[in-house]
Formats: sequence, structure tokens, C-alpha cells
Amino acid sequence: MAELGEDSAREVISRIVVRDIRFPTSRYLDGSDAMNPDPDYSAAYVTIYTSHNNSGDGFVFTIGRGTDIQVNAIAALEGLLVGLSVDDLFSDMGAFWRLLTYDSQLRWLGPEKGVVHMAIGAVVNAVWDMFAKREGVPLWRLLSSFTPQEIVNLVDFRYLTDCLTNAEALAILEKAAPSRDERSQDLVDNGYPAYITSAGWLGYSDEKVAVLVAEALARGFTHLKMKVGRDIDDDVRRVAMVRALVGPDVKLSVDVNQTWEVDEAIANTRRLGEHGIYWVEEPTSPDDVIGFGTIARAVHPVKVATGEHVANRVMFKQFLATGAMDVCQIDACRVGGVNENISILLLAAKFGVPVCPHAGGVGLCEVVQHLSMFDYIAVSGTSENRWIEFADHLHEHFVEPALVRDGRYRAPQGPGSGASMLAASLDEYSFPGGPTWSTSNE
Amino acid sequence: MAELGEDSAREVISRIVVRDIRFPTSRYLDGSDAMNPDPDYSAAYVTIYTSHNNSGDGFVFTIGRGTDIQVNAIAALEGLLVGLSVDDLFSDMGAFWRLLTYDSQLRWLGPEKGVVHMAIGAVVNAVWDMFAKREGVPLWRLLSSFTPQEIVNLVDFRYLTDCLTNAEALAILEKAAPSRDERSQDLVDNGYPAYITSAGWLGYSDEKVAVLVAEALARGFTHLKMKVGRDIDDDVRRVAMVRALVGPDVKLSVDVNQTWEVDEAIANTRRLGEHGIYWVEEPTSPDDVIGFGTIARAVHPVKVATGEHVANRVMFKQFLATGAMDVCQIDACRVGGVNENISILLLAAKFGVPVCPHAGGVGLCEVVQHLSMFDYIAVSGTSENRWIEFADHLHEHFVEPALVRDGRYRAPQGPGSGASMLAASLDEYSFPGGPTWSTSNE
Repeated sequence: MAELGEDSAREVISRIVVRDIRFPTSRYLDGSDAMNPDPDYSAAYVTIYTSHNNSGDGFVFTIGRGTDIQVNAIAALEGLLVGLSVDDLFSDMGAFWRLLTYDSQLRWLGPEKGVVHMAIGAVVNAVWDMFAKREGVPLWRLLSSFTPQEIVNLVDFRYLTDCLTNAEALAILEKAAPSRDERSQDLVDNGYPAYITSAGWLGYSDEKVAVLVAEALARGFTHLKMKVGRDIDDDVRRVAMVRALVGPDVKLSVDVNQTWEVDEAIANTRRLGEHGIYWVEEPTSPDDVIGFGTIARAVHPVKVATGEHVANRVMFKQFLATGAMDVCQIDACRVGGVNENISILLLAAKFGVPVCPHAGGVGLCEVVQHLSMFDYIAVSGTSENRWIEFADHLHEHFVEPALVRDGRYRAPQGPGSGASMLAASLDEYSFPGGPTWSTSNE
Repeated sequence: MAELGEDSAREVISRIVVRDIRFPTSRYLDGSDAMNPDPDYSAAYVTIYTSHNNSGDGFVFTIGRGTDIQVNAIAALEGLLVGLSVDDLFSDMGAFWRLLTYDSQLRWLGPEKGVVHMAIGAVVNAVWDMFAKREGVPLWRLLSSFTPQEIVNLVDFRYLTDCLTNAEALAILEKAAPSRDERSQDLVDNGYPAYITSAGWLGYSDEKVAVLVAEALARGFTHLKMKVGRDIDDDVRRVAMVRALVGPDVKLSVDVNQTWEVDEAIANTRRLGEHGIYWVEEPTSPDDVIGFGTIARAVHPVKVATGEHVANRVMFKQFLATGAMDVCQIDACRVGGVNENISILLLAAKFGVPVCPHAGGVGLCEVVQHLSMFDYIAVSGTSENRWIEFADHLHEHFVEPALVRDGRYRAPQGPGSGASMLAASLDEYSFPGGPTWSTSNE
């Protein structure tokens, strides 16, 4: 019976709760772009509970319809989670990632892409959130406390070894290790550079854009991004207008949200480039490694950026190794969570490509900042030519909202990954039962 | 009130029913391979009903766990379907494909990959099934009755135009058009070549493989495929054994099911190639266009085959345009249904790559044969160096089982796409409530 006694003392995952949370952002055209005219920013939000009443939060960012599909997929993972020892998980998070990703029957539904892979990412991130909370530190600090070998152990090198071996990854991390402390201190003192997207949503009027651009400059941003891709003549007009507003020294990037063909992307980027464009983001399909390479070579010195819809590390590997991605835009919730994002940070470091995360949406700023900060301290060792995206929406619903001052993200200090939403917000925006949706006619 | 009267006469989609159907194939190691040791061959099976009580069937092939996720995703599409005019659908199936695929909120969950994209594929295929049934012809004959321009109108050229334009597609189809009738007659008289996979599942004993190989030869097959990828020394031994059994003239291909790294794939394929290998299938990640290209150049004259897990036409485009895929293995249920598969047939024709569909599983033979037959009649115009995969499992559950005689698929003659299962089978294998599952301890 000793074993039973031990078992009851052993902390295990006991249950998960998944919620469909939707914000009615389409009512105000917040977040509107050429591909996504009317998103309702949403989250398939998961809380993992343990037998000892600890918990961790994670989510998949979605934009409305289909959040129910994503919620259901996360819920379907419960059977793989319940009963797992928390200590075992924390001592080998690489094995935990493989446990979920290598499940052969679930893998068939991707493999390693789409709804199932994002569900795995949410669950992996939620366990990381629990881990950081138990240690009482922010996730960036937890990750930065690991030795190079411990970090390598988090990574799945499957399908990467032709471009990044275990030994190469270790060498990258060891090179950065001796100077971690000074960058950690710099981060706490000075924060991490941000760029802002809030100014240029496609659905906004010229007047609203002008007001927001002035606000962005006043808040210390030196890099702004606007949405384009609906009508190239109007795009050129709007970019010229914003360029006139910001002057020659502010960096201005444009986001096409996948709406162009390869040839079109080249011609249009050249036209926009006449007004000084830093990067062109998602000019075409996020699956088109070869097409992106063609575009990148043709539009240089304008940089080509992508990543928020790149499905997994195998796709990132190809973009990075072939020069098809000048700017690597990781997303906290698209790939298989923290572990897979670390493999992408290592690939980017190997190929010398700056990581500028996708953020905005619901909670993406709150979570992804931890990865850039870890990258700065322990992987690439630099924040030069790197910015984390910032957008102004929905931060008030998070326990520790991302904090940007003087155009820089302040390093979060609270424990966890940043994913935790306020209980009141979870109740208010539950779909379809929450007050926002059940009392609305829209 | 005239309008109301018209509406009641107008045939519209009225509801969809989605079922979770699972066969306990893991009990016998049918279908076992290096990546998938214990699949329970399954289907997320949808029937779309109209106001006039017509219907069409489609499905996503799955392998057990996660079928519920896929079922839920298909069910979530009901709101986009109900109320659509059946005549409008049939008169512009290209628009129907875009209606589903371009839904911006759902698109976020892919884009165009994974659970949501496969759900769209099942629904698109079910409407094609309904269309062919209304015309009273098999799907291959319906598709082959369209003019080149009508076929082009089914295709979405978004993201393809750098490699295949509307005009190029039309030229391919027009070239084949004058001689369609003779190939159609040849198909009815002689069928379409098949290869067989049933002999070489990884979980089978040497004795069972030897018996099945002898059976396959006696049944007229001249091309066999075996599973490898678990242990290369044992793979070499098994391939040598089968080569000795079949003699030098039978084509022998191997399927790795994604288990090798790029370098490993090259070394292992060369070893197996000493025993005369026709193609090596899925040597590594199905997302790795660049890796496949490297392998293809290194292992020539062994051909590299892939496609059953390639997510969409954008990925196929890259594989085909860069010589990373010597054999194009379309799957009836992985991409967005008939429409997207037609775009892939056209890409393959443009780049001169033979299409040898993935089949087996649940119902894949029954459905995908229609696409190869259409390819023969109206697109590539040849069946040379082309075979449709055949595996012996689960055909008895279909209304019109695929029929292979003398190593060739006989052209199906019944109306529809081949997707319809018998009502008794749907009841028996419903998960978890059907008799097979509710009375089992496994």
C-alpha cells in the first residue's frame, strides 16, 4: 500500500478546462486587413489543473468562427494529459513535447500543422506557464536559467539535422552563455524594442490613421507597420501619406496578409519601396518557400518577412536555409509551443536571420515577448534589427498586460508565461453564453 | 408570396450528418508502418442532405484518435452550407470551393491545411458525390464530360500563377480533348493499372509476407510496395527477401512513412536500391520540399514519391516545379477535395510528373480511382508509368467496392464518387456506440 500512499502525494495533471473566448472586434474594424476583413479576435483558452490545485494557462489565438473547432481539439487531448506526473514533465519538457507530437493517430490529422498542432502548442505552453509559476519567475527568466545542454534537450531535432545538428545548437547556446547576465540586466533596465501595428489597419479612415500615427510617434515608436494588399494604387497612396507623416527616419513596414501572387508581389513591393519600406510581410502564401525566395531576391533591399502562419519548424528550416525569409516572425501560438519555438530561434541564429515576433491579437504580445527576451539573453545574444510587434488591443483582459514604454517592451516580472486572462474577462466574453454575446443582436 | 412559393420548390442543402466510424484494424496490425504502428482505420463521414431528399457522401480518412476532432470540424461547416441552392452549386463548383476555403475566420486555423482544410475537402467531395448521383454517372465520367474551359473554372489559381496559369491549364486540357473518347472506351474495356501494398505491412511476419506476395503475383500485380523505416538492416533483409520472391522484372517500391532524416534517407535508399527499388516513398517530412529535392537528386535513378500528407496545391506546386517529387501521390481526402486535386493533376501534367494516387485506408481506393481515370481521359492523356495504389482492406463496407482484376482497377459504373458506405457498416462501426466498440473490451 506504500505505493498508493506515494501516488496520492504525487502531483499529477488532474483535468483541463477549455473555453471559447471571443471579443467582438469586428464591430470596430480593429484588426482588419486584406485577407481578414472582419475578425472577431478570439482564443481557445485552456487551463490545466493538477491534483495539488496548481494550474497553468495557454491558448490558441483565433479570429472568430472555428474557435469551437479549436476548443474541441484541445479538449480531445485531455486523455493524453491526465495522470502525468508534474515533476516528470518539468524534468523533461522535451519528452512531453514528443509525447504529444508523436502520437501517431493524432499526427495523421496534420502532420504537425493546423488545428491539432496548435492544440498541442496551447497545452505545451500551459504546462510551461505552470512551470514558471511554480518557480515564481517569468517564463523568459526560467528559460534563461537553463544550461545550454538543458535547452538543447527541449528541442526536437527530427527533420532538422540537415540544417541544424544538436552540436551546432549547443555551440550557439554556449557562445551566448558567458554574457547572459549582462543582457539580462540590460533587459530589466531598458526593455526590448517594439514596433507598432495599431496605426495602419486597412479598415481605418485616413483621418484615424493620421491621429494614430501621431500618437505612435509621441509614444516613442521608431518603426511602424501598415496593412496593404487590397488595392495597390490605394496602398501606394496610403503608404506615401504615412511616409510624409513620419518623415524619412522612421522605419515603415507593410503587411500584405497573403493576398498577392509571386509576380504581383514583386511588382507591388517595388512600387511601395519607392516610399521607403523596411519589410514586406506575407506577400503571398505562407507555404510558398520557393515563391518567397523569388520575391526576396527580386525586391532587395526591401526585406521579406513571414512566419505567423508558417506551420512548423520544418517549414521555418526551409525558409531560413534558402534565404526566403529575411525577418523571422515567430508566433507564440501557431507552432507546437515553447519547445518548437526554441528550435526556430536556434535555426534563425544559425542562419543569422533576426527574429521579430508576430503579436497583437489576443494575448500574443503577452506571451511572445518572453521568447524574444530569451532569444536576446541566451540564443542570438542581440536585439539589433529586432522588434516585437505591438498592437493596442485587449491587453486589459490579462493578469499581467504587456507593458510598452518609450517604444520598448518592459520585461515582465510576474510569474508565468503571460497567458493568464482575468476571470471576469473569461466570463464576460465566453462564447456564446457570456454577457457580451448573449445580450447582443450582432 | 410568389417568392416563398419559389423557395419551397428550390432545392437547397437542408442539413448535414457527420459520423465517427472506426474499424479496429490495430487488432490485426493491418496498415502498420514505421510511423503508424497501430492504426485503427477510421473515417469522419459526412452525408449532406437536400430539401428534396437527395444526398451526397464524403469523408476524411483518419486512423483512430482524433476522428472526433475531424467530425466536429466538419459539423462546424453546416452553417456555411444550409440554404445553398443545389443548382447554383452544381453550376459553379469553383465558386463553392472558394466560398469554403476563403472564409477568413476559418482560414486562420490553417491556412489551407490540417483539420479544417480536410473538413472542407470532405464537404466538397460530398457535393460532387451528390452531383454525379443526380447525373446518374460515376464521378470520373461526370468530370470527363466537362469542356476544357469548364474544368479550368473548377480550379483556384490563387498562389499557382508563377507556375501554372489559367491559359496553360486550358492548353493542357485542350490538347487531350479530341482523343478523350478513345481513352474512355479503353478504360471501360481494360481498366487502369494498380499496384498493391497489402503484402508488405511492417507488422507482418516473413511467412505472412511470403504468402501475400505469392497471392499478389497470382492476381496479376506487376508492382508491389513494402513498408520500411523501422530498422535499416532489417529493411534490407526484407527487401532482398521479397526481391528474391518476385524475381527481377516485378517493380518493387518502398514506403518509409516519414521516418528518416535527409542524410539518412540518401544513405538508406542507396542500400535498398541495390535490390532494385522503383520508388522510395515519404523518406522524410512531407513538408520538406528542399529536403526531398536533395534526396531526389542523390538517389536517382530510384524515384522519390510523396503526396499523401502534402497539405495543399501550394506545396504540390513547389514539389513539382523543383523536381522534388518524381511520383505525385494525390490523396482524395487530404487536400480540399476534387477541385484542389484537379489543380494538382494539372500541375503534374505541366511538369510531366506521373500521378500515382495514395489509396488503401478506408474508402480511398473507391474515391481516388475516379481522379486517376479523369486524369487519363482529360488531363495527362496517358496511364504510362502510373498505378493507383491498392490495399485489400475494408472494401466490403462500400456500396460499390473498388474492383481490381488482373492487376487493374475496373472503371466503376455506378453513380457517384464511390464514397458511400453501407448503412449496416455505418451502424456497426460507429464510435463509440456501435456494436463493434460497445461490446469490446479493447
